[in-house]
Amino acid sequence: MIELSMPELKRIESVVRNNEGYLSFAQGALRLRGGIDASIKEYAQQILQTDKADYYQDALGILPLRKKIAEMLASEYQSPIGIDNVMITHGGSGALTCLALTLLSAGDEVILLEPSYPVYESIVKFSKAVPVFVPAFEMKKIQGEQQWVLDVSVIEQAITPHTKMLILSNPSNPCGTVLSREELEQLRRIAELHNIYLVVDEVYDDFIFEGQFYSSTPLIPQSDRVLRVGSFSKSLGMSGWRVGFLVAPFRLIKSISVMQGCAFNCPSVIGQYAALYGLEHKNDIIPRSFDQVKKSRDLACAFFDLLQEQGIVSYVKPTAGFYLFFKTQQEDSFELVMNILQEAKIAMAPGCDFGQTAKPFVRFCYARDPEVVVEGIKRLQDYFIRKNISQSVQMMSNSL
Amino acid sequence: MIELSMPELKRIESVVRNNEGYLSFAQGALRLRGGIDASIKEYAQQILQTDKADYYQDALGILPLRKKIAEMLASEYQSPIGIDNVMITHGGSGALTCLALTLLSAGDEVILLEPSYPVYESIVKFSKAVPVFVPAFEMKKIQGEQQWVLDVSVIEQAITPHTKMLILSNPSNPCGTVLSREELEQLRRIAELHNIYLVVDEVYDDFIFEGQFYSSTPLIPQSDRVLRVGSFSKSLGMSGWRVGFLVAPFRLIKSISVMQGCAFNCPSVIGQYAALYGLEHKNDIIPRSFDQVKKSRDLACAFFDLLQEQGIVSYVKPTAGFYLFFKTQQEDSFELVMNILQEAKIAMAPGCDFGQTAKPFVRFCYARDPEVVVEGIKRLQDYFIRKNISQSVQMMSNSL
Repeated sequence: MIELSMPELKRIESVVRNNEGYLSFAQGALRLRGGIDASIKEYAQQILQTDKADYYQDALGILPLRKKIAEMLASEYQSPIGIDNVMITHGGSGALTCLALTLLSAGDEVILLEPSYPVYESIVKFSKAVPVFVPAFEMKKIQGEQQWVLDVSVIEQAITPHTKMLILSNPSNPCGTVLSREELEQLRRIAELHNIYLVVDEVYDDFIFEGQFYSSTPLIPQSDRVLRVGSFSKSLGMSGWRVGFLVAPFRLIKSISVMQGCAFNCPSVIGQYAALYGLEHKNDIIPRSFDQVKKSRDLACAFFDLLQEQGIVSYVKPTAGFYLFFKTQQEDSFELVMNILQEAKIAMAPGCDFGQTAKPFVRFCYARDPEVVVEGIKRLQDYFIRKNISQSVQMMSNSL
Repeated sequence: MIELSMPELKRIESVVRNNEGYLSFAQGALRLRGGIDASIKEYAQQILQTDKADYYQDALGILPLRKKIAEMLASEYQSPIGIDNVMITHGGSGALTCLALTLLSAGDEVILLEPSYPVYESIVKFSKAVPVFVPAFEMKKIQGEQQWVLDVSVIEQAITPHTKMLILSNPSNPCGTVLSREELEQLRRIAELHNIYLVVDEVYDDFIFEGQFYSSTPLIPQSDRVLRVGSFSKSLGMSGWRVGFLVAPFRLIKSISVMQGCAFNCPSVIGQYAALYGLEHKNDIIPRSFDQVKKSRDLACAFFDLLQEQGIVSYVKPTAGFYLFFKTQQEDSFELVMNILQEAKIAMAPGCDFGQTAKPFVRFCYARDPEVVVEGIKRLQDYFIRKNISQSVQMMSNSL
């Protein structure tokens, strides 16, 4: 039997779900007032008046959704992505599951870059491969400012003849930063040189607040080693609908879709139609949630800036995605997170979920209504004041 | 890379899906006019007016559905099945995927009883375990009548120290028969004696036309070795909604749900609510489709009886499930199936999908509207007449 450890954040999230009065900034889901965009659900209701969504569909996903994704990516990245490069999946995790189960043999090694999204480790393990954690991202003070710095050399050092894959998220979960074009190119070169698959989980690609995001998408037609994961759980906030997608070389899509046909049969068909509508109306729907998430990020940063000035935490301002990842003064933040959960009824994800080197950190998901973030900040502030960790926080935070 | 072979029936089904004028009796889905019961979809539409289905839910599934399934099974089988024994899954295949990935280690052996549903082999393979086919079911003429006979001794002979699991379907896909109480008990005894998991896929349990069906459900509280798979794809015809369930000892459910949380996050939430409604109104909904499927089975049997009398086929009358599994005069039915697909535009599943010993057979899924089955029979009849395989079929079949 394979014993997978459940990420602590899932355990914490279930406390929130089954009890009253908690505010959760733990699970990485976009949650805005009123749920997902009403127009998506109205369209789903129309589909339910037909039998379109009732029966099994192709394991690759429904044709119009694959077509729409291919067209969108081809135009956005000026790249020859075709329908044969696209498979619809049961969320981003379904895409990762299918590709890992297909491409990995027992005993293969998979490099995960710390801090790493915890599900990657589990997916590698149930694929009977071996996760190899490489602390490639380090938070460093450069010219007076905290930055996450990628050290590519430690990745190369970790490669062995058994290495088959490297999985990372970009924008980063949990760091909230993006790779530079140069860094992405370096990773691609490493993948090609060593014949390993480079899997880039880009589920937060619609939430870039500052700077330039470089997707792996345009590398796919140029390389047989690059795979890119996408999701509607984040962009459209449809996490309960379970629809994502995989973009990869046709040869790989072919094998992976056979696997998906066996393990999943097909992704939820009503979910696929809902995602199709959402994607077709993306330009109306996403800006609304983008603005809310950006506002929430700014509020969270204003508060954590104060804590940082007090020396209570240090962090890199997130430029993308859903997370503010702050370093505490603890060697392991777990106890602090559980304490805050209990006393302030605020749920966050402890750093231990993201690897050994991430233990001092805490992940705060700000993809909530700004009012919810303000309420969360107030509770955290009260907690810190009560704890006398810094009495001056109160004074400082009056300016908030 | 794991190369899984796509079942031929999936390839055939995609010909049907992407072309006009075909009638499919290949894929094992319940397809009745007008799609699934309208009341289920009306309820789903109500749920869509709330945000209940928008976000991630517990990996185990939504609480009211788990509760309803546990109550239903406890009452139906007078057995202490509780909510802790039940996990909601992404269809029956999702249940098998999660349990196999959790319980199997690389190199473990899994016994599959031929004729075997082809997806089992793939699931074993991507779990990095080894499928061991055992031709335990044999079609024999006993007292002038064809019967499927289970030989338990060949199963015991196939067990090695590496054997970890035995997977079978009951009612049988493709044989259309059920295990006797004695046979089920024998399998359970073998499982316990050799410490192997007995996985019984009971997705056709709502379609028992004659005789008594013995579910593995009441064995679960008595044994730590029995797991039972269920699905709403068959009972309620909701195959596109992707909802099924697993019933197992709590200790196993606990580990398997952690795995599901990683690979699937959770099953489609709107699908779970739709299934909940369907289950609550099962007694209104299922009898309608049951009657149609039974009528279709009777029509199919009347036709295949004629072919049997002519010596063209031989088969065991299905007493349960969706399939009529007939033996042709060919060593391998594949060419015949492809010929009928091309000439008569009738899709069926070739025996090769179900294992070496099943090659002479063809699987005909009668879970369609009776009118569709009649049209299918007409085309098959024309085909056989055109082929001069038996000129007298026409005469005989006038009585149909």
